[in-house]
Amino acid sequence: MPHSDDFGVWEGEVTIDLPAQTDAGIYFIGHIRTPWKTRKECPKNARESDALCTLEVDSRWVQALKDVETCSHLAVLYWMDRAPRNIVLQVPSHYGVQRGTFALRSPARPNPIAMSVVKLLRVDGRKLAVIGLDCLDGTPLLDIKPYFASTDSVPEAEVGWHKRRTQAAPTQ
Amino acid sequence: MPHSDDFGVWEGEVTIDLPAQTDAGIYFIGHIRTPWKTRKECPKNARESDALCTLEVDSRWVQALKDVETCSHLAVLYWMDRAPRNIVLQVPSHYGVQRGTFALRSPARPNPIAMSVVKLLRVDGRKLAVIGLDCLDGTPLLDIKPYFASTDSVPEAEVGWHKRRTQAAPTQ
Repeated sequence: MPHSDDFGVWEGEVTIDLPAQTDAGIYFIGHIRTPWKTRKECPKNARESDALCTLEVDSRWVQALKDVETCSHLAVLYWMDRAPRNIVLQVPSHYGVQRGTFALRSPARPNPIAMSVVKLLRVDGRKLAVIGLDCLDGTPLLDIKPYFASTDSVPEAEVGWHKRRTQAAPTQ
Repeated sequence: MPHSDDFGVWEGEVTIDLPAQTDAGIYFIGHIRTPWKTRKECPKNARESDALCTLEVDSRWVQALKDVETCSHLAVLYWMDRAPRNIVLQVPSHYGVQRGTFALRSPARPNPIAMSVVKLLRVDGRKLAVIGLDCLDGTPLLDIKPYFASTDSVPEAEVGWHKRRTQAAPTQ
């Protein structure tokens, strides 16, 4: 059942009934400013782009930014507020193969929380200039974390389905 | 104002008023089984432990695990449900220096979503055996993502305040 909406449910995808209610609430702590106004404009993944983006933290939380400027890289969590949450098997258009949601980085997932590792260029008050995002302009921000290579970096990690894919696709 | 609770607010810490309401809801998609029943038992960070932990995904979401077994490592998001959310400046006990919440990996943050990179040992139905967690037994699970070295691994990343610390502390 293809939708006109980019974020819809597509043929070959499997949905389930969502729970009747959510279990906890989250705050949007700010928003992300990017050059991209539609999903089609967004880079396929963040490493394809060196576009400058800005994390705009709400003034309520500005004190929590102390010492962030000492970090070379950050893990940024944000809310993919337009993505469907009920898809368990999906068919990414650039592969055409059905895969489980938890084996994909698609925004469509039970909790549409995206995680990106960004390079921090500078902190100016409540605004952080970063490189390494691929989301829509205005995306709600959930969290900013210091990136520790000691625990977060695993250069030898492999995603088997991606490595073995026969279709020569440029991105994950 | 020190509390008897490990997760309380401590002297030198600064809190703010939380927003009147949350902006979105999240689902607990399962729970994490670990050997640790109290915070004191938990390793200071995940790299200190090679304890076997289990991600137990609720049966509702089990189809979403397809192809996850091909991943060597996963990024796991979980909910630190006992942590205070209103602390903007905090004083980690093993450093004794006040730092901004967004410069720390402390569970106390506006949205207490923790992110850990784990090594996947095996998938058995809706249970995933992993190494690399440091959270309490029963912690609610939010998301499982394939870890892509191409976008998620930054071996050269530095956290300046941590590198420059004079106190010889064993962990981040």
